[in-house]
Formats: sequence, structure tokens, C-alpha cells
Amino acid sequence: MGEKQLLMIPGPTAVPQSILLAGARPMINHRGPEFKAALEECTEGLKRVFQTSHDMYILTASGTGGLEAAVVNMLSPGDLVLSVSIGVFGDRFADIAETYGARVEKMDVEMGQAADAERIRARLAEDDRREIRAVLMTQNETSTGVTNDLATIGPIVREHGALLLVDGISSLVAMDCQMDAWQMDVLVAGSQKAFMIPPGLCFVAINDRAAAAMEQAKMPTFYFDLRKAQSYLKQGQTPWTPAVPQVFQLQAALKLLEKEGLKECFARHARLAKATREGVKALGLKLLADEACASNAVTAVRRPEGVAVADLRKLMTEKYGVVLAGGQRSLKDEIFRIGHLGYVGEADIIATLGLLGLGLKELGVGVDPAAGVQAAVNSLGG
Amino acid sequence: MGEKQLLMIPGPTAVPQSILLAGARPMINHRGPEFKAALEECTEGLKRVFQTSHDMYILTASGTGGLEAAVVNMLSPGDLVLSVSIGVFGDRFADIAETYGARVEKMDVEMGQAADAERIRARLAEDDRREIRAVLMTQNETSTGVTNDLATIGPIVREHGALLLVDGISSLVAMDCQMDAWQMDVLVAGSQKAFMIPPGLCFVAINDRAAAAMEQAKMPTFYFDLRKAQSYLKQGQTPWTPAVPQVFQLQAALKLLEKEGLKECFARHARLAKATREGVKALGLKLLADEACASNAVTAVRRPEGVAVADLRKLMTEKYGVVLAGGQRSLKDEIFRIGHLGYVGEADIIATLGLLGLGLKELGVGVDPAAGVQAAVNSLGG
Repeated sequence: MGEKQLLMIPGPTAVPQSILLAGARPMINHRGPEFKAALEECTEGLKRVFQTSHDMYILTASGTGGLEAAVVNMLSPGDLVLSVSIGVFGDRFADIAETYGARVEKMDVEMGQAADAERIRARLAEDDRREIRAVLMTQNETSTGVTNDLATIGPIVREHGALLLVDGISSLVAMDCQMDAWQMDVLVAGSQKAFMIPPGLCFVAINDRAAAAMEQAKMPTFYFDLRKAQSYLKQGQTPWTPAVPQVFQLQAALKLLEKEGLKECFARHARLAKATREGVKALGLKLLADEACASNAVTAVRRPEGVAVADLRKLMTEKYGVVLAGGQRSLKDEIFRIGHLGYVGEADIIATLGLLGLGLKELGVGVDPAAGVQAAVNSLGG
Repeated sequence: MGEKQLLMIPGPTAVPQSILLAGARPMINHRGPEFKAALEECTEGLKRVFQTSHDMYILTASGTGGLEAAVVNMLSPGDLVLSVSIGVFGDRFADIAETYGARVEKMDVEMGQAADAERIRARLAEDDRREIRAVLMTQNETSTGVTNDLATIGPIVREHGALLLVDGISSLVAMDCQMDAWQMDVLVAGSQKAFMIPPGLCFVAINDRAAAAMEQAKMPTFYFDLRKAQSYLKQGQTPWTPAVPQVFQLQAALKLLEKEGLKECFARHARLAKATREGVKALGLKLLADEACASNAVTAVRRPEGVAVADLRKLMTEKYGVVLAGGQRSLKDEIFRIGHLGYVGEADIIATLGLLGLGLKELGVGVDPAAGVQAAVNSLGG
């Protein structure tokens, strides 16, 4: 089938043809009126997606660059930070803070579980001297397919007074994320996830409390200095030359999203995620995540006994053109992950489950190969 | 003429249609075999362009991100650094070093002049305790259209022993730059200049001396940590999700460059730059740069008396579709700049000079509007 692929990984995700071509427009001056219009339109559109009325910056970097921007613009060396990590990306956020000299207290959670709001409340309550300057959290942990309940946790952190810095890289657009209502102070997203555009940009929103903290922050930063981004945005520019094609593509993607509607988009992701889980279970496989906190963006599946993850992924890619993700770190050989975020529909889920059934059978797993697709279709119709 | 434009600014530059479309390929897994092949091909191709046999890293950021990578991976807070600045971008390199805690000694040069190799030699000779850890230089200063003689300066710095960190963002591909032969330790370039691809990537090459310095460097860095880039490149990957379309585009651009030949490409830039200067002078305008050090990538031109730079640029863009750059900082209202790097040919230079003549006439400059294009054509034919 040559290049025909179902890219079912949690990012970069498949990009609609119209958005691919939006990036192929002739180059323009990044300090001219046409780029200014595009940047301003994107900034306003992103605020609607983040459900915030506050400041939004578009940076040329991967999501990790956005996390670095969140840390270095808000904190000073020596600041105490509570890192609530439920997986690889939560750990990365903590690593960044540590690299720049924060004192990081880790609150680790077992892989596959969500953060415990009451444990966070209790820890913050102990901090009667208000030493904890910020709490770092991931809304959706891509490595385990688990979503944290930020609607509950946000107000708990606000009550204490610490800044809440949220990694929303794989959650924005795929699930509800109300920056202002849920009291997040900094929220970061990336272009290559549910936004349906290629990698190259990240988005960092900061509210008034964060803007005030930024004035005091002393970690060194140049490329990711949001004060520079702030001052250039007033002229409709970015401080450094931006990834212009991805800005054109963001403009196009925001139009598609507004056409679908945010709520409808969240509902689609929830419906597809449910069908994926039902299909996987019907194939006799076990989910890593507790279903109560299972992600609508990515599903992590434990490998069937006797099957190596690498062999399954290789077969699925090479024979069927279905690209699945493996596990990371300690889960490397234990799970595979199905991304179902962004430009994904019923057809992709049905095809993936059907082909996964065939792949498992071929690898000697004693299972009805059609059981998964049957359950997925029933879930979608239910 | 709608979107038809001659983008004559010193970056982002015009992108060939075939390269625009190379970026519109369906998205792929950035940790899969297809991306690995592209990344490795690009890395090797870039080494040939940089004329180096050493390590090459492709980062998702603008050129400024590459300069930050050069600084933070090589230096420690408190290190003494000699910054030889001949304009805005030289100053930016120094600002980055200062931001991360280096002690920066500035050796400033008048705008429009190149760095004085003998002055650098003398300063380094004074440093008998070898306190100067690194020298920061720009090969081609985009703000003034001046090129430094790195072939002479490189060996002077090496003799002292300091690391030579070079900003080659607007020079690579547009002019000869022999990283190894000229004894540069770190060399940085950006995608959106003479490489003919959109912004989004920067390239950082480091030699063995720089790799050894990196092991000792103590400035904090996470996103731009080249040690992480080094370890991932061994597996054909980048540590963070890269701007995949620009990597596809780099692959295509390197093929075009190899077809043209590096030497032929430098000669083309020299020929077009000369024709531009001859044309501009024939229109009675004055060059900012001393012709002995005038850049083959960009020409800075003093505004004619009685004409505001903003008015000239507005007329040229809106009436003729020729996009010129203004000046920066103290030169903001004093010069305009013509970029002639990357995907640019004789036709672009002739058209630009012809239209510039018409524009000047329209703004009341008493000049034969055809004098510029006549001189340019003669220069190209000579």
C-alpha cells in the first residue's frame, strides 16, 4: 500500500490535506501586515480553545519548549515546587524545573492512575508557611493514557495560593480544558496533537497572576522569554522568526475546529476513545489505565502474554500500515498505545481494531479476530 | 497582482514550489524508520554544507534558538567571553551569553564595517592568563549587510585557545563558510535563509573541542541541551518532537543544492550581490557597508534624502509587490535592505532594481528610473 498509513500514535497526528496545503503557501515577511493578521487571528482563536480571556503566546518549539517557557518565566532558582507526576511527561516537567534550579518535591503516582486530589489538598494544607510556589501538573499523561481531574484540583491549588502550571499538550482540543474556570495560571499546548497540524509550534497561555509572577521570576531565559513575546505581540509579531507554515496551518485548523464546535469535538474524542477501549477489551487485552481516569486522547494497552510489543508494532506497520506507539521507560516492553486524537474519525477506529484483531491472531494469540471491531462498532452505535 | 510578491528580505526567503510541497507530505511517526532515514540524510548533507566532518544537530527553533544552544552548551556562568559585534545580531549573541551569566566583554565595531582581525589578535594577545573562554562572532551581519573575514579570524582565535562560536545564520549557503578549515568550534545556521526552506529549524555544528567543552559547561539548559540531541541522534531521533515538514523540506533543499554545487551557489550569490550594489549605486543611492566587506546575502542601502524608508517600503510592496526590509534599531529610519539569498536569480535582481527605480521616481527622487536596472544588467553580463 506504499505510503498509505493510519497514524494512530499520540502525536504527531495525521494532518488533513487542506491543512497540509495551507502550509505550502508562498513564504511571506514575518514582520509584515499579512503575518500580523494571521498571528492575531490565531492568538484569538487559541484563547477560545483554551477557554481563557488571558494572554496567549505562540512559540516556535515542540511542547517541551512550552513547558520550559512555563517554568523559566514563572520561577526563580531555589523556589519550592510540587510536581505531581503520573508518568513520563509529568517527570519531564519536573526535570525542567530542577534543571533551572527549583527545589522540586515529587508527588509520584502509580503508572496508570490519576493524581489524588485529596492528597494534593493535604500536602498543600501542611504548607502553612506558603513555601510551595507552584504546582506542576499534566492534564493528560500521554505515556499512560490517564487524565487528571483538573476541574477539582485547580481550585484546591488556588486556595493555597501556589501557581498552577499545567501541561495540556495532549489534552487541549481532545478534551474539555477550561483554563479560567478551573483556575489554571499557565497552560501549555502543542501543535502536533489534537490541533491537527504538524509539529513546530507550542502555545503558552498565562493569566494575570502568572503575568505578575513573571515580573519577579529570575530563572535565565532568552529564546523562551515571554516578556519579549509580550512586547512583540503588541506589534503583531514574534521576537524571533516563527515557523510561518505552521501558523498558516493553525489558522486553517482553528477554522475547522470552530466549524465542528469545541463541545462536539470533545464528544467525538470521548466516543472514539470509548469504542477503542471496548474493542481492545473484547480482544482479551487489558487496559493500563483505570477506566475512571482513562484518556480520551490515547489508550495504553498491556501486551498479550507471549507477544513482544516490538513484534506487534512491526507487524501492524509493515503488513497493515497501522502505526501504533510503544511504551516509554519502564513500560517500554509492557504496553502499546493507540492515539485517537485530532484528525481521527469512526473509520480510523474501526479499521484499527479490525486490523489489530488480525495482527494478534497472526502472532498466535487465541482470540476471535473480529471481536474487537464488533465491540467497537457496537460501542459507536450505542 | 494579488499574492504575487518578490520577497527580497534577508529571511524568511522565497521557497521553491517543490520544497513547499515537500512539506505537505502526510505526517509520519517521528520515532519511526522513515523519519530516521530523513534525519540522517539531512545531518550528513548539512555537514557537507558546513564543510565539517564533526557533529551536527538539527533543532526545532529559529536561528536565535541555535545561538542560545551554542552559548548554554559551551559555557558556565562567570566565564569571560569576548563578543565581537558588528550589528544587531552580534549584540543578540552577546545578550544571550549575558542572560545566562557569562561576563561579556564587547568589542563593538561601527555599523557598516567588518571586525578588525588585528584588533582581535591584539586583545587576545593581552589575555596572557587565558581568561577569555570564548569569542562570539557573526559571519554575516544581517542588520548591516557586512561579512566578517572568518578565514583570517578563525586561526587567530585558535592560536589563543578560546572557543570560536560563530553565527552563520544568514551566511551559510550564501557564501563560503569552511567550519573545519577556518577553525570554528561551533557554527549555527537557520533554515529560513539561503537554505530556501521555511523557518522552523536551526542547525548547530560542534567540533571535538566544543564537544569536550560541553562536558564541562554549567549553564542550565533543557530544550536546547545538545547532550540530549547527541544521545537521541544515535537512534536517528531528536529528543523532542521536531518540525517534521521542515525536515522533509531540508531533505529536498539539500538535493537542489547538491545539484547546483556549493561553489556555483556561492558564485551565484556573489554575482547577484554585485549586480544589486551596482544597480543601487547607479540610482544615486549610497551603500551602508564598505564594499570591501559587503555581504553577498543582503545589501543595506541608505535612504535617499527626502524619502522616508517606511514610505518607500510601503510603495514598493503595495504597488509593485516587492518586499524590502527596513533598518533595525539606530538604522531603523536610515536604511532599507535588499535580501538576495536563497531561491533568488538574475530575474529577481533585475525586476527589483527596475521597480526600485520607478518607486524612487514616484517619490520625487530626481533619478533616471532605468539607471539601476541598466547597471545591474551590465554587471550580470560583465
